[in-house]
Amino acid sequence: MIRVAVDALGGDRAPDEIVQGALDVRSDAIEPILFGPAGLDAHRVRVVETTESIDMDDHAVEAVRAKVDSSLVRAVRAVADGEADAVVSAGNTGAMLAASLLHIRRLPGVHRPGIAIVIPTKRDRSVLIDAGANADARPEHLVQFAHMGSVFAEEILGVARPSVRLLSIGEEPEKGNQLTLEAHELLRTAGLRFEGNTEGRTLLEGDADVIVTDGFTGNVALKTLEGTVKSLLDALRAELEASLRGKVGGALIRPAARALRERLDPETYGGGYLLGLNGLVVIAHGSSSRVAIANAVRLAARGVEHDVVGRLRDRLTVDVAPASASDGNTAL
Amino acid sequence: MIRVAVDALGGDRAPDEIVQGALDVRSDAIEPILFGPAGLDAHRVRVVETTESIDMDDHAVEAVRAKVDSSLVRAVRAVADGEADAVVSAGNTGAMLAASLLHIRRLPGVHRPGIAIVIPTKRDRSVLIDAGANADARPEHLVQFAHMGSVFAEEILGVARPSVRLLSIGEEPEKGNQLTLEAHELLRTAGLRFEGNTEGRTLLEGDADVIVTDGFTGNVALKTLEGTVKSLLDALRAELEASLRGKVGGALIRPAARALRERLDPETYGGGYLLGLNGLVVIAHGSSSRVAIANAVRLAARGVEHDVVGRLRDRLTVDVAPASASDGNTAL
Repeated sequence: MIRVAVDALGGDRAPDEIVQGALDVRSDAIEPILFGPAGLDAHRVRVVETTESIDMDDHAVEAVRAKVDSSLVRAVRAVADGEADAVVSAGNTGAMLAASLLHIRRLPGVHRPGIAIVIPTKRDRSVLIDAGANADARPEHLVQFAHMGSVFAEEILGVARPSVRLLSIGEEPEKGNQLTLEAHELLRTAGLRFEGNTEGRTLLEGDADVIVTDGFTGNVALKTLEGTVKSLLDALRAELEASLRGKVGGALIRPAARALRERLDPETYGGGYLLGLNGLVVIAHGSSSRVAIANAVRLAARGVEHDVVGRLRDRLTVDVAPASASDGNTAL
Repeated sequence: MIRVAVDALGGDRAPDEIVQGALDVRSDAIEPILFGPAGLDAHRVRVVETTESIDMDDHAVEAVRAKVDSSLVRAVRAVADGEADAVVSAGNTGAMLAASLLHIRRLPGVHRPGIAIVIPTKRDRSVLIDAGANADARPEHLVQFAHMGSVFAEEILGVARPSVRLLSIGEEPEKGNQLTLEAHELLRTAGLRFEGNTEGRTLLEGDADVIVTDGFTGNVALKTLEGTVKSLLDALRAELEASLRGKVGGALIRPAARALRERLDPETYGGGYLLGLNGLVVIAHGSSSRVAIANAVRLAARGVEHDVVGRLRDRLTVDVAPASASDGNTAL
């Protein structure tokens, strides 16, 4: 039985959709544990009562320090204390990062944890890292994201010697901003299968197993991708409804369109792993519905089954040992 | 007759598609002038012979200085010298920026030119600026992009008091990287209709008339948007071809799907204006086909007709006067 702590107050649709998602995902193999206020309609799911809540516009580090009895902090601490095997929250990403750094702590040698999202591509799957943990990053952080993403792709997705590309604004090495120009140079000698830069237009094509970027760019790219899928399918539907021919065609293509939407829907992949920590943390979308939360809990459970944390711990101490000193510039 | 200088050697599909695009767009109202090597199959389009070429992997500033007889530099100089009313190139963006700064020069008070792309949205159209001229930018540059984008939206797109949003990783003011956090503060008191941050997922929804960002993020977002549209429509087609029902439905929805693809296809909008210069410069996509080049030339001609440069000159000297000193950190 894998125990997954779930922050019942995290996300735009908390607590109802979160609680429902936890109810939906409960099985013989997965035990969600809800952290939230008294009175949640949680049926047979266990609830740990908490008295405080961290909001989306709270200052991350201050809120984590001040609100020690918040659902988010308590859920994170459950992993640190061994009372849960993983934690899921759709709440304030910065607060999740801060709480995780404070209570779960980093793996040895890790400068900054990064959010790894598995994107379904035309060929297979790619890992995008960092999808939003660090809004500002230094070149050496990107190199470490590349290492973590590679280990993840190899151990969890089963890719032998994963290819790595750097998200930039041109394939040529000299195209980019100061951060990517320096990161490109470092990546060439980092012992990875680095294949150069890639551009936003290839994200769904699967040009590389691992796409490395800073958390700001990664988050903008991911949200642009998700928003474009949604806007485009909505626009297609509106276009089809404008004519009889379109309506008939639309009815016929519905199964195909639905399959595509489901494959690309962020609710389907549920969230991302916050890699580089000494425990399993899943960050779910702020807009998560019950379906997304259930999938995020499943994602967390798969991470525990595959021992994502243990494998990263084993591999990172070998791969990134030269850069193993923690730096003084983390969020805490 | 509007004369548009066209760099025949710019872009992945030069010179054939460029020359064809110029032939296609030639009319009583538009006279394209091709800049390129002897021997181009240009029929009735005038060719100015040049002997050198700037490549995608050339160092922008060095190439512009060294290759004075390149098609790109000569086409830009034609505008500076009054021999053409505008210039179009699908070549090296950095070189176009460098050549434009050197020969056409900035408008008074402008720190950095920015690429403005008109995105077709659900509601109407949005201006994204900067879509790729400056890979690294400072907060005050973003404020000026916001001013230029606003003037552009007002004067060219006919929007009264355009709304402005800053592309970031959360709608809350405290979400973002160092650059956007500082830019957000400056934008609040910049005399614009600033409505806060927006996210990549809203780009096609039309949440604001002007979306402001640095050139790196803007370029990644734009290419992600374009790539997602293409990947998704390709995937839908593949999905439909897998079943008879899908094939029939696909045939019925073809007009609607084509209308949508055309509306969102970067070939349709053709390119972006490099705003902030003392002459009209259009940057076309590196992968431009003849259709895209023809549309880019039309975009350039519309910019001349609407006197984009003159209107920016008039308005910017008023709006951005306090920040009018040029800084020492431009590409040249």
